[in-house]
Amino acid sequence: MATIFTKIIKGEIPSFKILEDDNFYAFLDINPLAEGHTLVVPKNEVDYIFDLEDSILAQMNVFAKKIAIALKKSIECNRVGILVVGTEVPHAHIHLIPFKKESQMSLSSPKLNFSADEMVKIAEKIKIQL
Amino acid sequence: MATIFTKIIKGEIPSFKILEDDNFYAFLDINPLAEGHTLVVPKNEVDYIFDLEDSILAQMNVFAKKIAIALKKSIECNRVGILVVGTEVPHAHIHLIPFKKESQMSLSSPKLNFSADEMVKIAEKIKIQL
Repeated sequence: MATIFTKIIKGEIPSFKILEDDNFYAFLDINPLAEGHTLVVPKNEVDYIFDLEDSILAQMNVFAKKIAIALKKSIECNRVGILVVGTEVPHAHIHLIPFKKESQMSLSSPKLNFSADEMVKIAEKIKIQL
Repeated sequence: MATIFTKIIKGEIPSFKILEDDNFYAFLDINPLAEGHTLVVPKNEVDYIFDLEDSILAQMNVFAKKIAIALKKSIECNRVGILVVGTEVPHAHIHLIPFKKESQMSLSSPKLNFSADEMVKIAEKIKIQL
C-alpha cells in the first residue's frame, strides 16, 4: 500500500508544496515544530533513509540545501536544523526545521498550529526565496 | 582559532576515531545520547552545514551512510537517526545516533557515560563492520 507521502507526492492528498524535482518532493509539515518546518521526501518509496542508493542520498542533501537557504531567508530563525528519525511514517524523510530554540529540534516538543490560510502564506514566502 | 573539531581531526585532541577520508572525519561523541553515537565532521572548517559546497554536502551523506550501516550491524538499536543542530560547536557536524527510543534523538535528553575502555571497545566493534 502506498505511504501517506506517496499519496501526497501523487496529489491524492493535498499538501503545501515547497519544491519538487524528478527525485524529491518537499512540503510543509502539517504538525510543525517551527514556522516553515518542511519535509523532504524521495519519490522512491524507501522506508529507511540509509537504504537509499548513494546517488539519491547525495542529491537529497543538495536538494535540501536549496530549501534550507530559502527558509533562512524567509523565516526568522537561528538556523535550519536537520532531523531524521523515521519511525513516524515508513517512507524516508528529512525534517528541515528553521529553529529559534534548540528545543524545537525534538519531535516531542510542542507542535505549532497554523490555519490553512497561514500555511499557504508561509509556503508562498519560502517559495519566493527559492 | 581552530575549532575543537579541527584539533580532533589534527590529532591535537584525542578521539575515538571511527572513519576518516580526504574530506571527513568521524568519531564517537564523548557525551553520547546512545551507545555508538558518532559525529561526522567535514575537514574544511565551516560553521553552518548549508554553507558547505554542494559536492561536499553530497559526499557527506554517502560517508555517513557507510558509518550508519556499520552502526546498525554493531549496536543494538531501532535504526540510526540523523541530527544536525549546530549551535554546540561552530564547525558543521552530523550526529548519527543509533537510537532505541525516539527520545534519544533530542540533544536535551540524558547523556550516557562510558569509560575510556568502554569507548575503545564500542569503536572497535563499529569499525569491524565498516
